[in-house]
Amino acid sequence: MSRVFRRLSSTVTFKATPSKAHHHGRLPASSLPLGYQLTGVHAGVKKRAGVPDLAVILSTSEQPTSAAACFTRNAFKAAPVIVSEDVLMQNGGRARAIVINSGCANAVTGKQGMDDAWAMVKATDALLPPSKRDFRHETLVMSTGVIGQNLPISKILTGIEEQSEDRLSTRTLGSTFASWELAAKAFMTTDTFPKLRSRVFTIGGRKYRMAGMDKGAGMIHPDMGPARTSFSGFTGTGSGAKQLHATLLGCILTDAAISPRSLQSALTYAVDRSFNSISVDGDMSTNDTVILMANGAAAGAGAGQEVVEIDEKTDQEGYEVFKTELTEFAKDLAQLVVRDGEGATKFVTVTVKSAPSYKSAHSIASRISTSALVKTALYGEDANWGRILAATGSVPFLPTSSSPYASAPAIDPTRVSVTFVPADGSAPLPVLINGEPEKVDEARAKEILQEEEFEIEVEMGMGGGPETEAKYWTCDFSYEYVRINGDYRS
Amino acid sequence: MSRVFRRLSSTVTFKATPSKAHHHGRLPASSLPLGYQLTGVHAGVKKRAGVPDLAVILSTSEQPTSAAACFTRNAFKAAPVIVSEDVLMQNGGRARAIVINSGCANAVTGKQGMDDAWAMVKATDALLPPSKRDFRHETLVMSTGVIGQNLPISKILTGIEEQSEDRLSTRTLGSTFASWELAAKAFMTTDTFPKLRSRVFTIGGRKYRMAGMDKGAGMIHPDMGPARTSFSGFTGTGSGAKQLHATLLGCILTDAAISPRSLQSALTYAVDRSFNSISVDGDMSTNDTVILMANGAAAGAGAGQEVVEIDEKTDQEGYEVFKTELTEFAKDLAQLVVRDGEGATKFVTVTVKSAPSYKSAHSIASRISTSALVKTALYGEDANWGRILAATGSVPFLPTSSSPYASAPAIDPTRVSVTFVPADGSAPLPVLINGEPEKVDEARAKEILQEEEFEIEVEMGMGGGPETEAKYWTCDFSYEYVRINGDYRS
Repeated sequence: MSRVFRRLSSTVTFKATPSKAHHHGRLPASSLPLGYQLTGVHAGVKKRAGVPDLAVILSTSEQPTSAAACFTRNAFKAAPVIVSEDVLMQNGGRARAIVINSGCANAVTGKQGMDDAWAMVKATDALLPPSKRDFRHETLVMSTGVIGQNLPISKILTGIEEQSEDRLSTRTLGSTFASWELAAKAFMTTDTFPKLRSRVFTIGGRKYRMAGMDKGAGMIHPDMGPARTSFSGFTGTGSGAKQLHATLLGCILTDAAISPRSLQSALTYAVDRSFNSISVDGDMSTNDTVILMANGAAAGAGAGQEVVEIDEKTDQEGYEVFKTELTEFAKDLAQLVVRDGEGATKFVTVTVKSAPSYKSAHSIASRISTSALVKTALYGEDANWGRILAATGSVPFLPTSSSPYASAPAIDPTRVSVTFVPADGSAPLPVLINGEPEKVDEARAKEILQEEEFEIEVEMGMGGGPETEAKYWTCDFSYEYVRINGDYRS
Repeated sequence: MSRVFRRLSSTVTFKATPSKAHHHGRLPASSLPLGYQLTGVHAGVKKRAGVPDLAVILSTSEQPTSAAACFTRNAFKAAPVIVSEDVLMQNGGRARAIVINSGCANAVTGKQGMDDAWAMVKATDALLPPSKRDFRHETLVMSTGVIGQNLPISKILTGIEEQSEDRLSTRTLGSTFASWELAAKAFMTTDTFPKLRSRVFTIGGRKYRMAGMDKGAGMIHPDMGPARTSFSGFTGTGSGAKQLHATLLGCILTDAAISPRSLQSALTYAVDRSFNSISVDGDMSTNDTVILMANGAAAGAGAGQEVVEIDEKTDQEGYEVFKTELTEFAKDLAQLVVRDGEGATKFVTVTVKSAPSYKSAHSIASRISTSALVKTALYGEDANWGRILAATGSVPFLPTSSSPYASAPAIDPTRVSVTFVPADGSAPLPVLINGEPEKVDEARAKEILQEEEFEIEVEMGMGGGPETEAKYWTCDFSYEYVRINGDYRS
């Protein structure tokens, strides 16, 4: 137990985090939503010349554009979050532009920060063709980067003004894939690739498109709530509210026509099952925002012709299709963030089944996904179900009703099972069945866990049904994560 | 942005975790509580010969011995936890012995695990002199180690039986410092030193002693609740219940005479402010247990003479002194666990002031203390207040009353301040004052953060008073932590 010679230093050599570049590819032009113009430029927020740090997105549709958003629940909301929520509230869910900068979060920046965020909004408003409606502002704003520093606002405003219609030599707004890609690059901070996806879908026989971008690679575990517009009833799972998490920005654009309130409810539903179901390191942000815009441009209707917006009350079937498509799309985008997790070598799906409710399933999946011991075991490729079980058992259930005599549902350990599921469809490996440990085939465990992707399934045995299951996506904790976030001396 | 040559491996060399051996030292014989016999032996649970893995503690006092305990709230309570809680409940807070094994947690071990835990209790009962009272069992049991494996029960029972009074050649029970040290060693799993402390105190002019041991170095962030005896009203802060944490075992013995119910309330109070206020990695355990015994032996009274037990109702002053002494002592013991945190190079106190309540102050301190981004920044010796603030803002407050119209208190960002406080009493370094970032003197920040110990103070500005402040003790996240918990290939 005593050591005569004490090591002065330790050295570890580890496999470099694999390149994630293969996750980025060209999107087909036919999948890009109509009626949008985008760009990304280097305004000067980031030090390195040529690296995009400012994105502008305009809806040029003749139809009214609906907008919805979900924001961080952190008590220290950044200025852009407060401003965007204000614009949406004032306009009842309408906006026609988004301006985004990376390199500086404009958080904890006091009055100056608020002034700067409004200045970005006004400058971008000026890029829009005149509005038929009487909105004071029509732009939403997002920022990401360092906390506690003011924006280099004049550089940003110059960058926005250079996109004016009359500034032919500097204007780069466009609608090609290259335009979308530039915007996506302007979102990036520690991301190693621009995160951009598109999807084509059909409602009532008509073709629509959605495309979007997001960013995030560290300080990720969002729990966003809907904008406080007058029709925001649903407040999300709330389960993650106890573990609010970190800087994720997302932006989804579609050329479908959706009413403002239905856009918000569809987004809130989709965000809970996507962006609020990912974890890189369990931390939270002052800036998380996901914006969704629907501009009705798919119909190809002219200015005089009003396109009927899909609304959950008047076209429930159409709304349900949209909500489902949006949710699947949001999951894809959100998962890209996990795949790019700082230092991550694994992409793991955590599925919790047969919990008393979706909310509790989500809470448990969240605990497992953020557990430092589980995540280091994933890095070590160890089928350590003990750590998974301990995480599972640490989530208290709330009573099922508000009656003072209601008791919380109790976990029956003899009904809990844990299984490792390979991504290739081959036989799953149960490690705990109904509370009893299995003799684990170590070679098979190694086979499954050595892959970059696999799934951990936890069966709670407390009742079935689709609304009692939740999926969460997470990655491992590696030396690289510590190096990126802690090793300032290297 | 593109890399032509991709590194195949990365190497980091880092300072080895400093030796913690200096935290262990000899206790004065005069500080050891009277009326206890202890030992630690190698029964064979651990592989390495000579390494203690079984401890036995007996109260040999002529007076009745009170016992109290706090246990993990994990849904998958290990067999020893269930058994100990049962014994305490049956006996109304009386027990005279504790048996502890390390090397195997006896968790997720089904019926066999329960049988084995009861067998350990019975075998230890047999070591006690006959009782004046009619208790079926008088022993509490604790286990720590690997989850999901059954105990080598015959080895353990043999080890216990070898402590019988008539087994003169194998009996090692004693009351010297060496006896206490052997017991403390038998608790250890990944600990690098045995954790043992003592304290002398006075109530009403009479001298008493308490001494105790604990263990834990990884999977630490306990949130223990009181044993469900008939007088357990207080349920702890509950704040950590949302983030239940991991294997800590503690045992405190005193020769004062305290009534069972007052012993339990004092312990519950102390545990919340000590063992439930530490974090190594924010994970939780199936086995956390802290036991406190009070045997009245200090009075030196004989068998016929009954010593009056201190009770909060009949001697409030005496009870308050005991509760305060116990709380300070428990903090010392608990902090030892943080100091021995796996791979830890820092010992950091997080103080949250002027929250709406102790519970919310505790929740916020807990969030900051378990944040991966804060902990990696501590490792990197970076005065990163942005990460501290984000953690602070992620804890939702509950409404102050149960009325459906009650709103939750809101944080006013312009009243929040963050300060780094050096351990040597020199000038603190404010980094955020009333929501405004300070220009940080980087040299001074480096001076403070390069030390092994310092404090982070977060002032919430929501009202003052002692019951609105909480302290938490945490350590940093290093490469060593990942290596210990994740690097199975090395």
